[in-house]
Parts: sequence; structure tokens; C-alpha cells
Amino acid sequence: MKNVAVIGASGYTGIELLRILSNHRYVNVNQITSRQYKGKALKDVFPFLYKSKYQDLIFTEDIDLEKSDIYFLCLPHDASLHITKSLKDKGKIVIDLSAAYRIKDKSVYLDYYNFEHPYDDLLNEAVYGLPEIYREDIKKATIIANPGCYPTSIILALYPVVDKIEDIIIINSLSGISGAGRHLKEDFLYPEAFSNAYAYSVEKHRHTPEIEFILSDLSKKNINIRFIPHIIPVSRGMLSTINIKINLSKDEIIQIFKEKYKNEPFIRISDKPPRIKEVAGTNFCDIYITEDKKTGLITIISAIDNLGKGASSQAIQNMNIILNIDETEGLINYSIWP
Amino acid sequence: MKNVAVIGASGYTGIELLRILSNHRYVNVNQITSRQYKGKALKDVFPFLYKSKYQDLIFTEDIDLEKSDIYFLCLPHDASLHITKSLKDKGKIVIDLSAAYRIKDKSVYLDYYNFEHPYDDLLNEAVYGLPEIYREDIKKATIIANPGCYPTSIILALYPVVDKIEDIIIINSLSGISGAGRHLKEDFLYPEAFSNAYAYSVEKHRHTPEIEFILSDLSKKNINIRFIPHIIPVSRGMLSTINIKINLSKDEIIQIFKEKYKNEPFIRISDKPPRIKEVAGTNFCDIYITEDKKTGLITIISAIDNLGKGASSQAIQNMNIILNIDETEGLINYSIWP
Amino acid sequence: MKNVAVIGASGYTGIELLRILSNHRYVNVNQITSRQYKGKALKDVFPFLYKSKYQDLIFTEDIDLEKSDIYFLCLPHDASLHITKSLKDKGKIVIDLSAAYRIKDKSVYLDYYNFEHPYDDLLNEAVYGLPEIYREDIKKATIIANPGCYPTSIILALYPVVDKIEDIIIINSLSGISGAGRHLKEDFLYPEAFSNAYAYSVEKHRHTPEIEFILSDLSKKNINIRFIPHIIPVSRGMLSTINIKINLSKDEIIQIFKEKYKNEPFIRISDKPPRIKEVAGTNFCDIYITEDKKTGLITIISAIDNLGKGASSQAIQNMNIILNIDETEGLINYSIWP
Amino acid sequence: MKNVAVIGASGYTGIELLRILSNHRYVNVNQITSRQYKGKALKDVFPFLYKSKYQDLIFTEDIDLEKSDIYFLCLPHDASLHITKSLKDKGKIVIDLSAAYRIKDKSVYLDYYNFEHPYDDLLNEAVYGLPEIYREDIKKATIIANPGCYPTSIILALYPVVDKIEDIIIINSLSGISGAGRHLKEDFLYPEAFSNAYAYSVEKHRHTPEIEFILSDLSKKNINIRFIPHIIPVSRGMLSTINIKINLSKDEIIQIFKEKYKNEPFIRISDKPPRIKEVAGTNFCDIYITEDKKTGLITIISAIDNLGKGASSQAIQNMNIILNIDETEGLINYSIWP
Repeated sequence: MKNVAVIGASGYTGIELLRILSNHRYVNVNQITSRQYKGKALKDVFPFLYKSKYQDLIFTEDIDLEKSDIYFLCLPHDASLHITKSLKDKGKIVIDLSAAYRIKDKSVYLDYYNFEHPYDDLLNEAVYGLPEIYREDIKKATIIANPGCYPTSIILALYPVVDKIEDIIIINSLSGISGAGRHLKEDFLYPEAFSNAYAYSVEKHRHTPEIEFILSDLSKKNINIRFIPHIIPVSRGMLSTINIKINLSKDEIIQIFKEKYKNEPFIRISDKPPRIKEVAGTNFCDIYITEDKKTGLITIISAIDNLGKGASSQAIQNMNIILNIDETEGLINYSIWP
Repeated sequence: MKNVAVIGASGYTGIELLRILSNHRYVNVNQITSRQYKGKALKDVFPFLYKSKYQDLIFTEDIDLEKSDIYFLCLPHDASLHITKSLKDKGKIVIDLSAAYRIKDKSVYLDYYNFEHPYDDLLNEAVYGLPEIYREDIKKATIIANPGCYPTSIILALYPVVDKIEDIIIINSLSGISGAGRHLKEDFLYPEAFSNAYAYSVEKHRHTPEIEFILSDLSKKNINIRFIPHIIPVSRGMLSTINIKINLSKDEIIQIFKEKYKNEPFIRISDKPPRIKEVAGTNFCDIYITEDKKTGLITIISAIDNLGKGASSQAIQNMNIILNIDETEGLINYSIWP
Repeated sequence: MKNVAVIGASGYTGIELLRILSNHRYVNVNQITSRQYKGKALKDVFPFLYKSKYQDLIFTEDIDLEKSDIYFLCLPHDASLHITKSLKDKGKIVIDLSAAYRIKDKSVYLDYYNFEHPYDDLLNEAVYGLPEIYREDIKKATIIANPGCYPTSIILALYPVVDKIEDIIIINSLSGISGAGRHLKEDFLYPEAFSNAYAYSVEKHRHTPEIEFILSDLSKKNINIRFIPHIIPVSRGMLSTINIKINLSKDEIIQIFKEKYKNEPFIRISDKPPRIKEVAGTNFCDIYITEDKKTGLITIISAIDNLGKGASSQAIQNMNIILNIDETEGLINYSIWP
Repeated sequence: MKNVAVIGASGYTGIELLRILSNHRYVNVNQITSRQYKGKALKDVFPFLYKSKYQDLIFTEDIDLEKSDIYFLCLPHDASLHITKSLKDKGKIVIDLSAAYRIKDKSVYLDYYNFEHPYDDLLNEAVYGLPEIYREDIKKATIIANPGCYPTSIILALYPVVDKIEDIIIINSLSGISGAGRHLKEDFLYPEAFSNAYAYSVEKHRHTPEIEFILSDLSKKNINIRFIPHIIPVSRGMLSTINIKINLSKDEIIQIFKEKYKNEPFIRISDKPPRIKEVAGTNFCDIYITEDKKTGLITIISAIDNLGKGASSQAIQNMNIILNIDETEGLINYSIWP
């Protein structure tokens, strides 16, 4: 049984990995790190995992590069950058939840992430971990660049017809606040986020180049989007409402989606606009397609859990593919409703 | 001092009118109606108004057409339709919060509201109660068609440049759940709306023709919009994110807005994307303008309280204008923050 | 494999049963009923269960008394009363989530539930389905009276020392709004429950006699409690804060609890006051014990999910015991955090 | 017109003071301080106050001890301690929202607040700012120790019968998260506080000695309480549920309360258990009294806004009394409902 490390295990994506791995039958977590909780047991820091099989694991500060086989990195982008290199040198499998290896165009890192990317070869080798698109590459990968939450929700909603899109792509997304991570900032305090909603990073958001890069790569043409993210007062959940010009009818598009995704266990083509409550806590991506006769626009709406399919459960899905076990292991569950 | 009636006073817009009128110095509420609470005192049904000056008013079932001078109608559209006629015949002033008199094009009522509109003359006479645009007409009006919440948030965000818009107008709006009214439906129960968000009426929403009618009227050309409303889990608040093509720079547009709205007490041109918490409980409309160099799109974001500027406080503003008293009477307050 | 019916499957406890049963390996759901959704498929009414194994089950209006082996009744109390009789006559196993068979003292039904209980023998035979206390009886039961949510949270927090309590038991409980069921009432609309909290049924609550009956039965003396339930603005979760006079130290009590519950998979004795987020969506009951030197009072705090251990997952636990399969089947999962 | 300073104006109580003072007609705010926002204008930091009369005030870091007549201190306890002394030496009026001058028994400060209190004379001179009890003293005061939120909600609910209470006082309180202040801690991040509730400081809470000191002082006997505070997921609002033994009937107690509070503008004796939504954003304290025949206990429930009557609006009420202006100036408003 493979040994798994969760590096940066006390952030929201790290702890979500541990929650899912607690019910995963075919791997063993043997390393969890956290500077903040160094020396403490998992169950004492996160009592919701008391009585889970990993309850007695102790957070360590340092990363043991030998001890595990698969490393999930839940770290700041520039920390992931270098640790991936070290792990790669040790022959380990890295599933990186940061953006450090997502975009082949290195200039993006300087412009959007404030660091120079020194590892051309690794960047080249890394596979973008969106199983519905890159499953064959993922099977052979040793570095997975796990996609961002917004990119996951948007790319899955465009992929089947991406090469047929004609003109504008305007995307309004809504995100739960857990998307900001466990970040101590006044904006994210309960009293200030409560009963609130707003657009943010309207001029420049890091996920824009990621989305454009992948969509351009898939469509073999240059795709520009207008992406406007919003914060809404939920902890988890992400909804992307996308308007495109395309020379296909709604029914044709639905048909293409159903065909393309027909064997996908986690894509659900919906009859009604999806609701974030229906996917929260799961690995599902629900997609709805409709048209507006008057303007001729096609509207596609997708819903995911930003910490689930948008981060941690997708990371587990990638691991399952790499390990050649049932891709859905640990991931078959439904949202808590109501 | 004029006597005021709130007809349908136990719905959300009715009760919000009473809250505001409790601090209004120049009119007297002498009639409140509610089928559900007939015979009960205001303070017993709505204890938050205990110790307010209208606490002992008794809800009546029937409408007394004589007793008051100004009638706020918080009724279903087709009920407002006819009561407005009766009140008009008595020489009363009507401020109608339904849609019954908002759109001059009668065909819309059949298509979107399921009734035929029999009162051409009244429809013609009614003034659309958006003070920032129609103040001069409002001064002389006896029937105010108080605007819808989405139309208010959208029209105010486009009005200063509406005649210069070139092409597409794509609008994503977020609304608090109070926008659905006090409507007993599973979707609006706390457990189902909690931690949820979704688009709705994506194919057809009643506010679309209202917005298009007013924008077309203002711009003297036919304007079509793609309007997609969403529900978010707050009680109050509305955010509209609008993308347009226009042959003006961001700075030019901001200048036009500042000039156009320079004397408006309730329009605030923001430096940052506005947040619904900053306008909740108030009559403010906060507007933010930015541009996206890559796509050439201008993005305008507006925030209002759907029950405030989107309904009841705007109705009071209209009344103040008609009565020729200080337009801000009863309306100067700031949101509860945090 | 046993066939299972969920009767009243579109309420909150019914749908929670279906969610859990979707991941249960040893029974087969072959009947779901709902007057409201008669003829519709599960996935169309509850899209969160789209792609679950029961997605295509059709809601029926009538109950087939033959078709299933085990019947979960999620019905009004007086409906459960009679259907249990009919099912019993057919030799079926009934797990009744209503209160119809919880209290052996028949006078309570007339006083608190407005019906006369005509089935002495069934009432006598029914087993109160709290596995931690009545497991041996449950194994042989054919009628399970599944406990109420408040009683579960309170009785589990007192059971190990119930015979040693001396004097007063004052209980303040907090409940999520899903505890009210899928009940269309203004109080439970999102805008009115949002940002709100209050005590209710302060003079008389149906769970008081249930709690007193079981505690008295367990302690062999007459126990009266002061029980004050409160509504808080969450969907799920229940917290009971209990103050008692008892002639034992905090440490002694903790020791007794740890001993009594040492083999219980779903009881967690906590080092810190438990949080409802840590148990939401699970079958756990977290219990914290402390003392107040000044007043000499012992305080016990327990947390459960009112729809989980307080209703549906406890019902599954009861079923597992009756079927003599692993008691935790379908129930090992951790709360969605954050 | 008196000049007013808000010292520590960017915390939640400071900003609430500014919100209320923006509509106060008889004082002028001429000083606001904040280390964090030094040099910035009020409207830029808090856009909800854009277009208010103080929108252009600039936050300063240093406190000008001369410039204002009345100083509201919204500071940590030990900072307030010394600044009060300096202001007093300058002959200023101090309304201190910290606990530094609330309790005459100096030993409490060392035990609960970790500092020695060096100013016997000032401590002696300071008046506990609960107008319903100490109005006459407040009129002549130059140092107001503005009460804590829990103490306000509890003392007002016991004061009229405090000398008749016989035995136990068990208090369970619920508080909105703004009660924790603008404190950057993981527990208060939206994702972690969302959908959560729990008891805290169960063994020792700073407000316990404050409550006991005042109740003992009022009743002329030693009163011990069992006080258990809970966090619930709202921003504002506080509910205290109190159980006492007392030799009076419910009706007698209600009569005593109505008589005692008959001229109080901000106390409302309720017919139903009060709801925090009914007092949020206001200076009201709603009180409900009932009895439990079985246990002989009297239950009193009170609701306030922890930032309103529990802090800032009460501070304004104190100022109004000191200035001998209408006690309700700036404070007549009703909660935003729904």
C-alpha cells in the first residue's frame, strides 16, 4: 500500500484531503505537516476527525522527503515550486495543489505570481490534472499540476465545444469564502463576510491566464475571456455562469456534452440550473446548457465544490488514476442536503 | 399632514415601508391592510416595531379608498392593476410597487404576467419612479410605477451612457432571497436556501422586458440584454455585474457618471467594487466602473438593497418628491456594519 | 439482500435516509413514497442524488405493504401510528421516525400529540432505538421507536450518571432549522430565519415528556427537567448544554463516561466544548464534561446532527443492529469541514 | 456643540459609534484614531459611510488629548486604563467601552484581565453606564464604564427582582461573532464560524465577575451565577436565557418589570420569546418572562444587539444623559427586518 504525505495539512485543502483519505481504502497517510500545529495530533487540532483512522497522526514541521511515495502539496506557490523539484529528484510522485506548475508559459509566473520559474523541464513535464481532459497523460505523470477551482469549473463547462466557440466568452463566477484559504484577513472574518457579496480582482485575477492558456491549448487558437469572480457568503461552492457565441444550437451542444462526458463518473449534465448545495462536499461538476434566442448567446452554468472538484477531491481522483485503482475510490458520496 | 396607506402591509416591501415611515416626520400612516393578520396590531405581528409610533395600528382586511391621501400598493400585479384604477377615480395618489404600470407596451403583460391590461389611459399616465431619471415627471405624477429591483440596479448603472452603448449587454445579477417576497415555497425555506446559490429564470425573467423597455426608451434605439439572475444566501442585497461594448474609455465613463449624478443624494460612485453589505438597509446605489483591456469590455457593477432602493425606500423617495418635501426625509441612514 | 422502503421520502429525514442508504452495501431500497412528488424520479426531484444508485427510483403515493422487508416511516405522528400496525400485521420490520411509539405512558399522546393511542400491545413491544442504551433489545425488535433529536442529544449526555443525579437538570438546547422539517411557515423562510435566534416552545415542548420518561425509566426515579429549546440559523446541528447537581467530581464523571462508552463507535468524549460543525452530516455524538467550582454545578455539553444521530443515521444504525450486520455500515464519515 | 473623539475607531464598537453619530444632531465628531488606517479617510476605509457627514475625517494614530470634549475609548482594557487617567487629568469626559473601570473590586483585574489596577480614585469615581439602573449617577459622571454586552443583557433581565432571587441563577447566552471584535483568529474566519455553534469560556469568562459584582451590589447579598456563553453564526445579536428560583409568580414578576421599566424608552417587555433579529442594529433590550410549573423555575429571556445596547448605542445613550439632551437622540430606529 502506497504511503501518502499531505504537506501543509492544516489549510483548507490539506484538511479536506485528510477527510477524504480517511475513507480511502488503498493508500496510507504516513506524514502530515504544519508549521502552526507542529507536534500536535490531528484529532486535537481538528476534532471533527476524532475517531478517524488518522486521528493520532502528529503534525511535523519538516518535510520528510523519503518517507512517503505520493506527496500532496498544499503550500504557497513559491514553496511548492522548489519542493516539487526536491521530491522529483527523489523519484516521488507530486500532486501539487498550488499553481506552480499549471501554466507552460513561464512569463505568467512573473506577472501574476511574483516569482521566476526556474524549472523548465519540470514545468514541461507536469501534467494539468483535469482527468476528464488529460486522463491518459495523468496515468503516466509524476508531477500533477492540480487545477485551480475557477479553471476547473470553467474549463469543464467549455471543453466539449471549445474549438467551436466563435467570439466572446464572458464569465461570472461565484465562490465560497473557503476559496481564499485559511487566510487571516478582516475581509474574511465572519462579521464582515456575513450577509455580504461582491466582485473582486475584477481587473486581474490569477486564474485568468490559467483558463486562457488551457482553453487556447485545447482549441488551438488564442482565446481571451472576461472573467469576473465574486465572493458569496457560503463556505464552499462555486458557480460559473458563462456566455458564449457559438454556431451550434442548444440541443446540439447538449448532445456533444453528453457524448463527450458519457463515461465520466463525476460530470452530471443537468436539466435545471445547478445549485452549489447539490455539489458541496463532493467531486461532482454539474453542468447546465441553455440559449437566449433574442441575443443568440449560449449560456453554460457549472457548479462544483471549490475545495472538492476544485481542489482536494480532484487531487485524489488524479492519485487514483496514477495508481491505476478505481478512479472513484474515496469519492463516491453525495452532498449534505439540506 | 398627508395620510398614508400601506396596502399589503405584511409582505416584505410593506413592512419595510412601515419601518421607514416610522421615522418619517411629514406624513402620517393611517391605514395598513393584510388579509392574513386582519384585526391584529402591528406590534403583535411584527414585534420589531413595538415602541414605534405606529405600533398600535390594526391591520384591516378591506381597503378604505377614502381614508388616506397616498396609497402604497404592495400587492400582486393583477390586484394592483384594478385597485389603482379605483384609487385614481377617487383622486388619490398611488405608488404601486407591483409591475402593473411599469411598461407602456401592453403585450408584455400578457406574455410575462398572464393578464390583459385594460387601462390604456392610466398606463399612459403612470410615471416610472426612478427619481434619478424621471424626477421632473414624478413631481407631477399621481400614479407611480415603482421600478423593479433588478431594473433599478441595472438602469442606474447604464443610464448616463445608455445612448452610447454599442453592442452587447450581458448582465449577471445576484439577489438576496427577500426578493422572492414572503412566499411559502420549499426553495425559500432556510435549510434549502442556506449555503446555496444558483441561477434561476435563466430563459425568461419578468424584469428583462422592463429593463429593455426603459433602456430602449432612454437610448431611442432597440436594446436587447442577456440578463441572468442568481439567488445568493442573504436576506437583502442585490449586485449587478454588467459588461458592455462602448466607444468610451473607463475614465470618460466615470466622468460622465460623476457629472450626471453629481447632485444625487443616493448614488455613490465607488473606487472599489461595491459590497451589498454597504448598502443593505439603505436607499443607496453604489456604482463601480472598470475596463478590461484585453477584451475591450467595460464592466459596471452596482449594488443596492433589493427591498430598499430596489423597492420600498425608493417608493418613499418618490413620495417625498411628489409631496415636494426634502427628498431624503426618512432615508438618511447607513447600513448596519458589520 | 433485504428490501427497504422509505415512507415519506421527500421530507428532510426521508431524504437523509436515502443519502445514507445510497452508500450502504447490504440493503436495497425498493420503495420510496411521497404524495407531493408522486410519479417523479428521485434524481429529478433531488438532483444532488443524480448518479447515485437510487437515482431512477420513482416516488409512489401509496404504500405497498408487501414489497419491502424494512420500513422507515418518516410521517406525521398519527399516520405512523396506524401504518405501523398494518406493517406489523404483515410481519414487517418498522423503524418509525415519528414519536408514535416512543413513550409507554399513553396519556402523553393525548396531552402533547392530540391523539389517543389505541395500540397498547404495540406500544409495549416497541423498542426505543437508542443503541448505546438499548442495543440488546434493538437486536430483537420489530418496531423501533427512533428517538427524537433533542432526546438523543440529552439522554446520551446523562445516561452514564443518570442514577446519580441529585437535583436540578436545566437544559438549554440549540437546534438547526431543519429540525422543523420541510414545513412551509413564514418563520422558516430564509429571510426571517437568517441572522436570527430565539427560544421557542418554552412553556411546553413535545420532547420534554420523552426525555423525562426515558431518564426516569433509566434512573428508577422521577426526573423532571427544565428544557428550553432554541432555534439558531444553521440548517443542521444540535447542541445541548446541561447543568446538573451531582455528588461526583468532574474527573469521576469523565471516567464513568469513558468506561460506559468505551466500545461505542459514535460517541466521542471531547476535551473541548464540541462544535456542531464537527458532527454535522455524521452519526457522532460529541460530549464534553466540566464543572463550576463556585456553584458546584456539573455542566455537560453534547453535539449531534439533528438529522443524523438525531434522526436518520441513528435509524440506519438501528437497522444495522437488527440485521446483525456491521453496526457502522454506511455511517463512517466525517463532517464537511470547513 | 460638544466635540467628540472616537479612539480606536476602526474596531467594531468604534465604527458602530461612528454610524450612530452620523445621525446625531447635537454633537460633532472631530477626532477618530486608528493605528491600522492612519492617514486614511473614513469613507475610503469604510465605504458604507461614504456620503455620511463624517466621510472625510482622517484617521490619526496619536490621540489628541485636548481637541475633543468627550472621548469614547474603544481600546484594549489596559490601554483604556491609562488613557482614561490622562484624559481625566485634562478634565475630559470619558466613556470607556473596555472593562477597565467596570468593577470596583480590583482583584478581578489581576485574575481576569492580567493587569494591576493602579487608579483607586478613578475606579471609585467611575459610574457603571447602565442608564436604566444608574441614570442619576450617570448624569454627574465624568468617567463612564460602559457595561459589557453579556452583563447588559443579563443585569437588565434581573434588576427589577434581583433582591428577591432565592437560589440558583443559571444563564445560557448566545452571542453573535462580532462580540469577539475585529480579531484575526481562525475560529472567526467565515468558513469556520459558518454553520457552527458552540459554548466557549465555559470554565472562566471575564463577564462573570462583572455580572456577579453588579448583581451583588444591587441585591446587597452575594450572588453567584453559572454563566455559559455560546457563539452562534450571526454577526450581531445576543440572547440570554436565565433560570432562577424566586418566590414570586410569573405574573407578579411581569408586573414588577412593567412598573420598574415603565418610562424606559429602550426596554420592551415582550409577550413572546424575543428574537435577536428584532433588536439587531438598535438600542432595544427585549425581555420575556415565563415560568415552569413542574420545576418551579422562572425563566427570563432577554435579547439585545451586542454592538448596540451591549456596547455602542448604550455608550451614546450615556453621553446623551451626561449632556442633558434627549436621551434617545440618534437612537430611535428599528431593526432591518427581514
